[in-house]
Amino acid sequence: MPTILGQNQYGKAENRVVKIVRDGDTHHIKDLNVSVALSGDMAEVHYSGSNANVLPTDTTKNTVYAFAKEYGIESAERFGIDLARHFVTSQDPIHQARIRIEEYAWERIETTGTGTGIGAGADQARHSFVRKGQETRVSQITYDGEKWEIISGLKDLTVLNSTNSEFWGYVKDKYTTLREAYDRILATDVSARWRYNWTDDAEPMPDWEESYERAREHMLHAFAQTYSLSLQQTLYQMGSRIIDSRGEIDEIRFSLPNNHHFLVDLEPFGLKNDTPDGAVYFAADRPYGLIEATVLRDGVEPRIPLDMTNL
Amino acid sequence: MPTILGQNQYGKAENRVVKIVRDGDTHHIKDLNVSVALSGDMAEVHYSGSNANVLPTDTTKNTVYAFAKEYGIESAERFGIDLARHFVTSQDPIHQARIRIEEYAWERIETTGTGTGIGAGADQARHSFVRKGQETRVSQITYDGEKWEIISGLKDLTVLNSTNSEFWGYVKDKYTTLREAYDRILATDVSARWRYNWTDDAEPMPDWEESYERAREHMLHAFAQTYSLSLQQTLYQMGSRIIDSRGEIDEIRFSLPNNHHFLVDLEPFGLKNDTPDGAVYFAADRPYGLIEATVLRDGVEPRIPLDMTNL
Amino acid sequence: MPTILGQNQYGKAENRVVKIVRDGDTHHIKDLNVSVALSGDMAEVHYSGSNANVLPTDTTKNTVYAFAKEYGIESAERFGIDLARHFVTSQDPIHQARIRIEEYAWERIETTGTGTGIGAGADQARHSFVRKGQETRVSQITYDGEKWEIISGLKDLTVLNSTNSEFWGYVKDKYTTLREAYDRILATDVSARWRYNWTDDAEPMPDWEESYERAREHMLHAFAQTYSLSLQQTLYQMGSRIIDSRGEIDEIRFSLPNNHHFLVDLEPFGLKNDTPDGAVYFAADRPYGLIEATVLRDGVEPRIPLDMTNL
Amino acid sequence: MPTILGQNQYGKAENRVVKIVRDGDTHHIKDLNVSVALSGDMAEVHYSGSNANVLPTDTTKNTVYAFAKEYGIESAERFGIDLARHFVTSQDPIHQARIRIEEYAWERIETTGTGTGIGAGADQARHSFVRKGQETRVSQITYDGEKWEIISGLKDLTVLNSTNSEFWGYVKDKYTTLREAYDRILATDVSARWRYNWTDDAEPMPDWEESYERAREHMLHAFAQTYSLSLQQTLYQMGSRIIDSRGEIDEIRFSLPNNHHFLVDLEPFGLKNDTPDGAVYFAADRPYGLIEATVLRDGVEPRIPLDMTNL
Repeated sequence: MPTILGQNQYGKAENRVVKIVRDGDTHHIKDLNVSVALSGDMAEVHYSGSNANVLPTDTTKNTVYAFAKEYGIESAERFGIDLARHFVTSQDPIHQARIRIEEYAWERIETTGTGTGIGAGADQARHSFVRKGQETRVSQITYDGEKWEIISGLKDLTVLNSTNSEFWGYVKDKYTTLREAYDRILATDVSARWRYNWTDDAEPMPDWEESYERAREHMLHAFAQTYSLSLQQTLYQMGSRIIDSRGEIDEIRFSLPNNHHFLVDLEPFGLKNDTPDGAVYFAADRPYGLIEATVLRDGVEPRIPLDMTNL
Repeated sequence: MPTILGQNQYGKAENRVVKIVRDGDTHHIKDLNVSVALSGDMAEVHYSGSNANVLPTDTTKNTVYAFAKEYGIESAERFGIDLARHFVTSQDPIHQARIRIEEYAWERIETTGTGTGIGAGADQARHSFVRKGQETRVSQITYDGEKWEIISGLKDLTVLNSTNSEFWGYVKDKYTTLREAYDRILATDVSARWRYNWTDDAEPMPDWEESYERAREHMLHAFAQTYSLSLQQTLYQMGSRIIDSRGEIDEIRFSLPNNHHFLVDLEPFGLKNDTPDGAVYFAADRPYGLIEATVLRDGVEPRIPLDMTNL
Repeated sequence: MPTILGQNQYGKAENRVVKIVRDGDTHHIKDLNVSVALSGDMAEVHYSGSNANVLPTDTTKNTVYAFAKEYGIESAERFGIDLARHFVTSQDPIHQARIRIEEYAWERIETTGTGTGIGAGADQARHSFVRKGQETRVSQITYDGEKWEIISGLKDLTVLNSTNSEFWGYVKDKYTTLREAYDRILATDVSARWRYNWTDDAEPMPDWEESYERAREHMLHAFAQTYSLSLQQTLYQMGSRIIDSRGEIDEIRFSLPNNHHFLVDLEPFGLKNDTPDGAVYFAADRPYGLIEATVLRDGVEPRIPLDMTNL
Repeated sequence: MPTILGQNQYGKAENRVVKIVRDGDTHHIKDLNVSVALSGDMAEVHYSGSNANVLPTDTTKNTVYAFAKEYGIESAERFGIDLARHFVTSQDPIHQARIRIEEYAWERIETTGTGTGIGAGADQARHSFVRKGQETRVSQITYDGEKWEIISGLKDLTVLNSTNSEFWGYVKDKYTTLREAYDRILATDVSARWRYNWTDDAEPMPDWEESYERAREHMLHAFAQTYSLSLQQTLYQMGSRIIDSRGEIDEIRFSLPNNHHFLVDLEPFGLKNDTPDGAVYFAADRPYGLIEATVLRDGVEPRIPLDMTNL
């Protein structure tokens, strides 16, 4: 047979699950988008269509919802670990499970201190939420029955420095027309994935919620505090701050579009548009610079796929 | 001639303008998407292609950027008023200008109090921003040379109550299978447009920024504080709170999708999924209920187009 | 009560219905997205939350699917007419129904004449389809118990002329920098809505399918055959061709973005980029010119809302 | 230094280039979206911000446009090869170039045989196009100065079989509720990437245009002609048909969402909805099954990244 089957996986993607936990009148919400991908002894279904080894994708969906009730959602990572373990240990033909999760953050609607309420009072807001709307938190949990690989991160966190960014001293070839910049806007939509060094059930798990908050904070601070000569330099600062500060994270991959803000030429209208006076910019869509890199702890092997943060 | 030209308008749409204002080391940002639509004595360009009365759309784009420098952007509404007045008063063939603006909010990156900074300190964050990411603020400014019509609002403000919502006592016909609900999630993406009663240059202008913040707050509070028997009831509470509280606003139009969260049936797996215990929901995409209505001050004529909040 | 309720409507939006009709081994497919909006005696549900007059949106969804089985889908328009009539005539509180439909076209996968097939032959393709992928067909059917209003059209039909387009002789003010063009690309995404003069059950209905195909064809031909001095001129030719040729259509509204293709300045690299030699263009995203106009039969009253073709 | 830099790349993404070639009055169009990613000796720009080795992303954009004029666009693959070779051979610090291209297809507007034209005739259409609107063709060209890797493919080709699909005989665990299906709709949006075995300038290049058309055709035919017991089986047929028929292609990776069409339960309304009579389906959005697999020539090493076809 000249043609063969290679790597394959299947499952139900984008199961939207919302879990409400009631603590008296105070409610808590978890809002996830869960995708299941299973692989193992699945050649026959490809060759002949026999589903004898196939747990239906519909069943994987049901399992997501049942586990949200049975075990709750302490964190996206922990939820994915429970799911992945279940699929690999309960079905012989399944040798590996990969769970991908997006999480959407909500914050409480604050109503205290407003004298205008119809009913009123602080407690009404205990079950009222407004979607936070910034980045989407992501996680990928992979289990092969022995080792865990946990890659977490975020996407679509849009940030901007209105100064402290330059770009000059670059290579100039026959196609180069760009003018050097000594005070420009630097803006990007952060897409980042970091890999935890936790791989074994015998080790204590990281605090996934705390780790996420700190990693996010380090990235924002490094972005704000770096006087930037290139987006690559800023990227490296963002990554190394995390590796240096968070022992549980060994590797981080960034994909940072350079959201160009071009100074508008207002000279034809007799207007100066210099940055020190405060300037007017055209925020461009396409094309955009795209800067991608991995930052990692010296001595560890990089494992985050380059295409994982595909734009 | 059996065929004739009806209403027509033209201009440059979606001019993305970012304005930075520097107050010493502290920067301020305005981030707008501005669309210009002009109408007037424009029959000939449609009939013969003569552009003798046509100010190019490219010129309207240039004007947006030049005005952002010359006059600044105090508020989206004020910026649109300056633009609309300019087009109508400077070009004889142009009898009406309609400026539509989307505004994207940013908040400062907080870096104070963090001991981990490379450089450090509070001042670095004075020019560093993260996009707020919740609703998009919108405004439409129309001027015919005599009267103003200002319709402002927002879209994509996603809110959710995890209890205090019921739905029962409805009409049942032969196609009705829905079961009554006594404790359900109520969630929606608020799209709202409100009309100001300011129409005349002789009157003092409202404080557009303050008015927006208060209208938004009233909507959120009404959403949180209404014990809801239907999304229509919640909508009316949101609207009437604004009309009752904000004298400068005469009319508001809502378009509220009912973002269905369905209780998952876990009985086949031997699990109860009752709301008092905290429940698991499937967050559905399509179809969705869609509730639209105008709420207005008694005695005023409704003027917000029904299709303006089209989903 | 100083605050009152204005126009309101509700229903289930975006019901995705696919109907297969089997004619022996040859199958036919209709693929629709149906949105229902009902209005009438609905004040109470807004004021008090009483649902006594409310047919649930879930029921309107069920009705869409049941009607697709009971009556079939001869055309989107005819399907919408059946639905609208049902809601208005079967429920006293409902005084008006508006049905909006999007239709996605499919074409058959051709397999005849291929000698490489496993099974083989022409008949396999009788039930195999590939989505056509061009424009989305749209329709809006409104019924108040007496008169019908049918507005049909399309959106996202992307067309391009690589020559026979000029733009010059326009107004120049202090903000004008645009250079005149004597041979440019003209490209747009056609969004059009046309209104039928059929309003009464006593009149014979138009052939909705035939009318759609002819209107689409007229627009494409007029676009291709017009030597254009402005996009407005092309728009008017597209509209008048339909009004002149199709007696059943009285009015058409266009919203045409000017999809700018800018000649790239290659002189810094020692290259000419003249259009007669075949040129290289940058296809821009934003901003874009936006040209909107109504073309109608002389003597009829325009009724298509200006905001219906909102971009 | 405990933290180090790993793999990195940069360039200008999504350069939208349209090339018109004039053959007398008959024009030809190529419409591409080109993304450049360069890597090599780039550590310093990350560590210190020195741009001494950095060819600006703006220059890579200029190069795309200049090459479209100088060398034309015979095919996306050939265009990418010219670009990749240029970057690697002209700049010492650049050791590898990866060019990604999306191509949008256009077809001519047919106007012959229409008696209704204003001007008229066949020749007007020689420069008039309508965007085809189906799949997006994609290609990725990678060059390290010695070897080439060409991965081409397509995405968003939506296909549907209205019968000849079953699903039964699968594993049933405690979370399984799915009922077996003996006549169902099978529909998917094909995303495929195939790798050519051409790697060396010394070998003759494949005919990229012909190869694309044949690969696409094989996939459509295999989809239409396979009586399917599972989407995995259909996937394998689509892949093996290409490997068996096209000697220039060694490996293909698919990512196929199972676009669920659920039979609507119409029994509550006294209606049968059996497939032999032609049935009514609800076309669901999320969740969806997701079937991914590589099919390859026996003996070759798989090289297409699993995450390249990420949904």
